[in-house]
Amino acid sequence: MLFPSDKKIKAIARSLYKIVEKLPILSPHGHCDPSWFSRNKNFTDPSQLLIIPDHYIFRMLVSQGLSLESLGIFPHDGSSFEQDPIKIWQLFADYYYLFRGTPTAMWLDHTFKYVFETTEPLNSSTGLTYFEHISAKLKESSFKPRALFDRFNIETLATTDSALDNLKNHKLILDSKWNGNILPTYRPDGIIDPETNDFSTNLKILEEITGEDTSTWKGYLAAHASRRAFFIEHGAKASDHGHFTPQTYNLSEEKASKLYETIYSGKFSQEQADMFRGQMITEMAKMSIDDGLVMQLHTGSKRNHSSLIFNRFGPDKGFDVPTKMNYERGLHPLLEAVGLSNKITIIVFTLDESAYSRELAPLASVYPALKLGPPWWFFDSF
Amino acid sequence: MLFPSDKKIKAIARSLYKIVEKLPILSPHGHCDPSWFSRNKNFTDPSQLLIIPDHYIFRMLVSQGLSLESLGIFPHDGSSFEQDPIKIWQLFADYYYLFRGTPTAMWLDHTFKYVFETTEPLNSSTGLTYFEHISAKLKESSFKPRALFDRFNIETLATTDSALDNLKNHKLILDSKWNGNILPTYRPDGIIDPETNDFSTNLKILEEITGEDTSTWKGYLAAHASRRAFFIEHGAKASDHGHFTPQTYNLSEEKASKLYETIYSGKFSQEQADMFRGQMITEMAKMSIDDGLVMQLHTGSKRNHSSLIFNRFGPDKGFDVPTKMNYERGLHPLLEAVGLSNKITIIVFTLDESAYSRELAPLASVYPALKLGPPWWFFDSF
Amino acid sequence: MLFPSDKKIKAIARSLYKIVEKLPILSPHGHCDPSWFSRNKNFTDPSQLLIIPDHYIFRMLVSQGLSLESLGIFPHDGSSFEQDPIKIWQLFADYYYLFRGTPTAMWLDHTFKYVFETTEPLNSSTGLTYFEHISAKLKESSFKPRALFDRFNIETLATTDSALDNLKNHKLILDSKWNGNILPTYRPDGIIDPETNDFSTNLKILEEITGEDTSTWKGYLAAHASRRAFFIEHGAKASDHGHFTPQTYNLSEEKASKLYETIYSGKFSQEQADMFRGQMITEMAKMSIDDGLVMQLHTGSKRNHSSLIFNRFGPDKGFDVPTKMNYERGLHPLLEAVGLSNKITIIVFTLDESAYSRELAPLASVYPALKLGPPWWFFDSF
Repeated sequence: MLFPSDKKIKAIARSLYKIVEKLPILSPHGHCDPSWFSRNKNFTDPSQLLIIPDHYIFRMLVSQGLSLESLGIFPHDGSSFEQDPIKIWQLFADYYYLFRGTPTAMWLDHTFKYVFETTEPLNSSTGLTYFEHISAKLKESSFKPRALFDRFNIETLATTDSALDNLKNHKLILDSKWNGNILPTYRPDGIIDPETNDFSTNLKILEEITGEDTSTWKGYLAAHASRRAFFIEHGAKASDHGHFTPQTYNLSEEKASKLYETIYSGKFSQEQADMFRGQMITEMAKMSIDDGLVMQLHTGSKRNHSSLIFNRFGPDKGFDVPTKMNYERGLHPLLEAVGLSNKITIIVFTLDESAYSRELAPLASVYPALKLGPPWWFFDSF
Repeated sequence: MLFPSDKKIKAIARSLYKIVEKLPILSPHGHCDPSWFSRNKNFTDPSQLLIIPDHYIFRMLVSQGLSLESLGIFPHDGSSFEQDPIKIWQLFADYYYLFRGTPTAMWLDHTFKYVFETTEPLNSSTGLTYFEHISAKLKESSFKPRALFDRFNIETLATTDSALDNLKNHKLILDSKWNGNILPTYRPDGIIDPETNDFSTNLKILEEITGEDTSTWKGYLAAHASRRAFFIEHGAKASDHGHFTPQTYNLSEEKASKLYETIYSGKFSQEQADMFRGQMITEMAKMSIDDGLVMQLHTGSKRNHSSLIFNRFGPDKGFDVPTKMNYERGLHPLLEAVGLSNKITIIVFTLDESAYSRELAPLASVYPALKLGPPWWFFDSF
Repeated sequence: MLFPSDKKIKAIARSLYKIVEKLPILSPHGHCDPSWFSRNKNFTDPSQLLIIPDHYIFRMLVSQGLSLESLGIFPHDGSSFEQDPIKIWQLFADYYYLFRGTPTAMWLDHTFKYVFETTEPLNSSTGLTYFEHISAKLKESSFKPRALFDRFNIETLATTDSALDNLKNHKLILDSKWNGNILPTYRPDGIIDPETNDFSTNLKILEEITGEDTSTWKGYLAAHASRRAFFIEHGAKASDHGHFTPQTYNLSEEKASKLYETIYSGKFSQEQADMFRGQMITEMAKMSIDDGLVMQLHTGSKRNHSSLIFNRFGPDKGFDVPTKMNYERGLHPLLEAVGLSNKITIIVFTLDESAYSRELAPLASVYPALKLGPPWWFFDSF
């Protein structure tokens, strides 16, 4: 996105861009809500669309001393928060100068100018005009989700969906006359991470919707296979996995089965939880060899770093902090199991740029199964 | 300090420099001796001023096979060392070519040319002339510390001072008619690090000068608060902390109190010493919220790497080696305790450049309390 | 090797290259087979010379889904493999486009053009012509090893040789009239790493060829000293050590002796094997102070990452993956033992570029014994 100021390099970048400029967008990973496209209702207002769901925006303002409440983020503890979208937008406009030089500002300025056709820069005095201008645009039918999808020349857009999701919005889109290609992605974190709040409840739901006995290792794996098949029926091409570390395991059938018993009982150590998560990466990869889903691994981010923020506002509030990872050691068991296979594609995303040249590129340059994604920090949220 | 050779970038750098060129210097952290300014005596000779106290110079010559003794560094074991400043300077001049292309040489050449107005490069044959020329300059009244302070257009200069220091030099400066702004900085390592040689003696001195009972956790904390107040009275704006790792702790009152008992008894494990140092970072931060001192953390340097050098010559002899640190994990307890506060500024310095984009910038982009300093390697000593 | 596109920088690079262009090559480390030069026979064919021994080539093709067997690599399990050099070469030519933009292609294209004087690019349709053209060249006397050695203006070339090698090829070269300077290098991994397959057999061979009692620590060290002396007689200037980690130890005579007993018994833990390898780095360094061999340390590569590949094809099949290392902590015991000596040169190679500015350069800028090699990834094989 950002290139050196060198003329020669910029010219090369521009000529490369010319080649891809008119191509349709294939978005393999993201967090758009599929109901936008199934219901195709207008977005409500600029604050609800651009500020409240975007932790890149509000985290930055929080770091400068503003409160999440004042930016419209809902606190679970019942304390008050700003609900007037105009006041939220004005506060954002007042502090917009703080984003100067950041990717967020480049992104937003581009959106303002090319999507909403604003003519002035956003600042404290243009805040209200901006709000009114964008609000008016959002009411137009050309700003409905499907219209924007077409306008942006998107060919395919993958969403990220809980393994327990009934995919009814995807079904509605498939059954509609609209030809937009919105694909679900199998994200089973909630039935894989034993430290998720509702883990045991989730396993019960999994049992109900698949008819598989999730009290046994075999049944649990069969339930995964069943849900993956359901997702594939609805168009899924990939699974996506958010794990803190890339540490994987490749346990024997017997050990994995015993480990699952312990996990299922609810009485497990931190170490056993780590091992189970790591084993499940390998199990998911083995299923990918059978059913063809591309596997995406998002690791290296310590989620919900501030417990105060997490307890008051919940997850995904911008407090996900990258940390050092050992990919060589972590991915070793997984690569021992499936790394030489030509029947699977595993895409590893990292936040640690120094890991590319040191560990990830060398691994990807020998194992056919392994491919590398871009550093995910600036590209997507979680 | 060093820019790419690209003309466009150099032009931008120069135009930015023009903006700040005439501004006064505000030096928030450094190791100047305050007695220079309270006594305002002439510096003795070039070797005593520029070589013997500067580990960036002598460490480099040591790496090329010269001995510390030959460069005038005092060995504690009674063995002989060079005491003739002319011989020391000549040796330095003989090997000065080894510094070509280093920041040290750029710094020194700038000093020689612009401060001492030399006209030839320093080398073996100009060594003696240099010594005589600089010696003569140093005898002039325009080369006294206060005169140089004014000439360099320094507005404020912070020193670094032991928590037990009586700050008499700062008092003398405050009481003098000279209007130079020399501020002390609270550096409590000697009463925080249980593995410091004179730790128990230091606690006794702390008790004497504050009247607080340092045998108890409460008294010990009160003694810190008292010393911080004393430093603030003498102009201090900041505390500074040299810790090996950035690992912090946020223990309960009860656990911290018990830990202090163990530390105070002198019978503690390595792990307990680590935990105590880490807990004290958090305690100092809590006091900063009350008294407003900015907190500076210098971590990531393994001090006195060569025990041979340390045993013969003492600390700060250039053998401080950076090592990898985990800031995300290390700072977590501290940030849980004070990270969301707007009433404290914590400046973290690092030596590991790969930590900026991976861990430090993301942390600073969410926690209002956290700010980042430059990599401290080339800017200051310890 | 690769420079920025900036004209000014390229001009500087070219002018620097002009200075060294005509100088003879001194190759201090590499893996050429000394029998090439003692026997001076023609190389057989392009596949045997350029593909089968070069893991940079076949690992890349394996990562794109080709099998090692199809590229002529011998499987130890008796399964079939391609033995027709023409078919191997054609397969390589078919996929040569995959190397575009890699250092391997630059290297190969340079070799094709300047050594073999090809005039077309290598691709699927020129594959056979290439094979025939290079095969014909290889039959000429000007393409015999000694002729190429002279043509490449090599002054000295160091090989890497097992500590148990009888160096008969080096002897033959020394005794011949040919004046090429081919030096052996002492590589004792096979008698230092207790986890090497044939470790106990190797110790017996060591005992036989030196007459020293390798069942004792003293005898074992004496055997090393004896072999080093033998290598030095044959021209060796250096030792070379391939260790997974740079973790060294500096145990007391007594502890080291006991550790050796345990290692010699064959019943040792992973931790004891690690400690023994680390202790032997320090022992080799101490011997270097006595006999003057330069010490080269190649660390940071996890060898034979895929056990499947290792079990079927053996070591050095491209599956050596870099991993993170702590040089500051790892080298500390070694530097405590010999770091301040002016009588030894230790050259440390790393694969982790972020370690240079953080740890290695600062260590080398104080310890006279320590020098840094380039990142070894692109320069040599193992």
